[in-house]
Amino acid sequence: MFEKVLIANRGEIALRVLRACHDLGIGTVAVHSTADADAKHVRLADEAVCIGPPSAAESYLNMATIMAAAEVSGADAIHPGYGFLSENAKFAEIVEAHEIAFIGPTPEHIRVMGDKVAAKKTAGAVGLPLVPGSPGAVTSEAEAREIGREIGYPILVKAASGGGGRGMKVVESEDKLSAMLSQAKAEAKAAFGDDTVYIEKYLSNPRHIEFQVFGDGKGGAIHLGERDCSLQRRHQKVFEEAPSPAISPEQRAEMGEVCRKAIAEMGYRGAGTIEFLYEDGGFYFIEMNTRLQVEHPVTEAITGLDLVREQIRVAAGLPLSLTQDDVRFRGHAIECRINAEDPATFAPSPGLVEQYHAPGGLHVRVDSGLYDGYRIPPYYDSLISKLIVYGDDREACLLRLKRALREYVIDGPKTTIPLHQALVDEPDVRAGDYSIKWLEAWLAQKEG
Amino acid sequence: MFEKVLIANRGEIALRVLRACHDLGIGTVAVHSTADADAKHVRLADEAVCIGPPSAAESYLNMATIMAAAEVSGADAIHPGYGFLSENAKFAEIVEAHEIAFIGPTPEHIRVMGDKVAAKKTAGAVGLPLVPGSPGAVTSEAEAREIGREIGYPILVKAASGGGGRGMKVVESEDKLSAMLSQAKAEAKAAFGDDTVYIEKYLSNPRHIEFQVFGDGKGGAIHLGERDCSLQRRHQKVFEEAPSPAISPEQRAEMGEVCRKAIAEMGYRGAGTIEFLYEDGGFYFIEMNTRLQVEHPVTEAITGLDLVREQIRVAAGLPLSLTQDDVRFRGHAIECRINAEDPATFAPSPGLVEQYHAPGGLHVRVDSGLYDGYRIPPYYDSLISKLIVYGDDREACLLRLKRALREYVIDGPKTTIPLHQALVDEPDVRAGDYSIKWLEAWLAQKEG
Repeated sequence: MFEKVLIANRGEIALRVLRACHDLGIGTVAVHSTADADAKHVRLADEAVCIGPPSAAESYLNMATIMAAAEVSGADAIHPGYGFLSENAKFAEIVEAHEIAFIGPTPEHIRVMGDKVAAKKTAGAVGLPLVPGSPGAVTSEAEAREIGREIGYPILVKAASGGGGRGMKVVESEDKLSAMLSQAKAEAKAAFGDDTVYIEKYLSNPRHIEFQVFGDGKGGAIHLGERDCSLQRRHQKVFEEAPSPAISPEQRAEMGEVCRKAIAEMGYRGAGTIEFLYEDGGFYFIEMNTRLQVEHPVTEAITGLDLVREQIRVAAGLPLSLTQDDVRFRGHAIECRINAEDPATFAPSPGLVEQYHAPGGLHVRVDSGLYDGYRIPPYYDSLISKLIVYGDDREACLLRLKRALREYVIDGPKTTIPLHQALVDEPDVRAGDYSIKWLEAWLAQKEG
Repeated sequence: MFEKVLIANRGEIALRVLRACHDLGIGTVAVHSTADADAKHVRLADEAVCIGPPSAAESYLNMATIMAAAEVSGADAIHPGYGFLSENAKFAEIVEAHEIAFIGPTPEHIRVMGDKVAAKKTAGAVGLPLVPGSPGAVTSEAEAREIGREIGYPILVKAASGGGGRGMKVVESEDKLSAMLSQAKAEAKAAFGDDTVYIEKYLSNPRHIEFQVFGDGKGGAIHLGERDCSLQRRHQKVFEEAPSPAISPEQRAEMGEVCRKAIAEMGYRGAGTIEFLYEDGGFYFIEMNTRLQVEHPVTEAITGLDLVREQIRVAAGLPLSLTQDDVRFRGHAIECRINAEDPATFAPSPGLVEQYHAPGGLHVRVDSGLYDGYRIPPYYDSLISKLIVYGDDREACLLRLKRALREYVIDGPKTTIPLHQALVDEPDVRAGDYSIKWLEAWLAQKEG
């Protein structure tokens, strides 16, 4: 097992990883920008190294200084968290070239799944159901037109290197194809330096359902059920739950097994998430994330597993600590992402936390680096806390969530706690009756 | 189900009960002394009523003002927590006479189990194994002498109304019996106004093992396994764990069934704890607590159940939500009682909490009313927080506990966190090799 893990991240996920390391008796090295010197994980780490100014490009994305910190501190492994360098194949290669373990998949798997066209090809090859669409990149308008006729409108034009909705266009009918294709390519070029696009059938009202998978790269492969992350705003997840209120135990077992077999065939090592759109009983692969997911705690709550521990074990060359038969699902869990944002406008609201009271008690987990007197820096993602609540069933879970949100006091910055409080009271949310379009429609209606 | 529960307690247990009520969608009424106006549970309750000055006798033990608060607020049930009025049969009777539900056992069961002689008689009648000793109160020195010869020295003389070690004497040999008997009776008289004593075989190096039981008073009866609470100082539990490192699954099943049958035969309603001394494979009944126990969260951690919810359900006339066959044990849990005390001298250390950072993350639970700027009042028990940690096995649990203790910052008052940190590193504690005498011997050695 490792002796010292460097945590190449910040915020709640750095704290999450630090706790998993300490729970295994492994030493920790925090790296931080000058803006994060007072962060909770920095205070709790065995060692801390300042790696640069506030700008992420010069600190949390700066491979050279992170590698220097690893060398200086003698870390024998690096955990990248999520975001930043977590899905950067080149970083994983550099880490391994320094004979330091990268706590994540192989660079090859990161690379393949990071390229949406290659990912789709691989997914299809290992048996994951795809959205009908172009077999790969679409190189001409004529080709796009042909595919559109084949799969039927509406269709979706998507950037191969994209993410977060940039370079993505819905085309309602063929007469709009030419203009939309040009727009998508131009956006893709501007955002990612790559104007490659592809085409997919547009699903009108799908849910976002993703399967948590785990492989040890030695034949061991399991799935840990699904998470329903349909409540999204601008392609950012807001509220996640497991199990999905929309799918049956039979569907879970069936799609779970498809996912499990897929990563077994890939020889995948580490944690991964296979994301699907789900509509009318059908699953359609969208992408695979080759890292720990923000919403992984809901899976931990219903399985009892420590996913970061499992990541560390697998990276250290150990086999998975359990087989598929050992996986047990129990109860229901929901995570609310709490952001330092105005809940009406979503404008960021960093600054001093004047009073902090986290909720607690049975089956309530808060993953957050906040504390009284902490100053939320304005330079990074606005996620400041994840509230994860478990209940014996969905109804009990929602009631407990309501209680926990009511207990939660963060004075100073504006937060999205009121948004979650409103959501929990919405009949559609209570009924589990929502698609990926629900939240934006609801927000628009509230505004109007 | 109830609409409004009055919580006749303070501190962490008031918060615990409040959370269980809110998790069920039930309204809450906090009652508090003037010293507790700023307590967390008072702030979080739907309604709060001040019931008197700091002195517990005039507030938390004042039945008249508590009943007035219940009437005024329209509460339809009262949860007494632990301590204070929780095992006061008269209070339970008064509550029921007001047609308010008492969330606890019947007054008859409270009364029987509150009288140590009657409790022993009842326990024997329902099949619980007893420590060999006098069949009831010992009325003369001659009788004591006869019993001593029968069961063999050393023997223990105990006050019938006693608790906390007062009125309790170990008699090493017959020549000391007369003096010790007088002393015990005098102490009992002074402490409890009742000099009734009884005699038991003295176990030289036992463990304290207790079984959590639950009945619905309608035939439903279950046990939830045992807790090992052997680490005690002056008969106060310090560190509790489940399962016990000393007993086997077969012993658990066997003694659990004995306990389950016992409360089924009693027709017991509510949560209860049957306490045993355990030595050389034998269990010896000491007492039954007819209330929620401080250490109930370790049982919640390994069973996934919410014991306060179960108490509320049963008090509302519902059957138990599960049968014995539904009870599943998983993993290992430890609770550390954290007191506002000097860890070297155990002198109380109330006052201002200047900085408060509670540990968190996966499988770490903190039950505490503390917050930044809270002032711990000097009038009550020094318990300020319970840290409950779960792990897949005892080793993982101990490592996580070590991490959580390291994360825990309470600046201002002195606390027993350093005591727990030292305990977790002790080879005997790590090995689970301790009796009820271990902690005091260890403390004496450290001092010497």
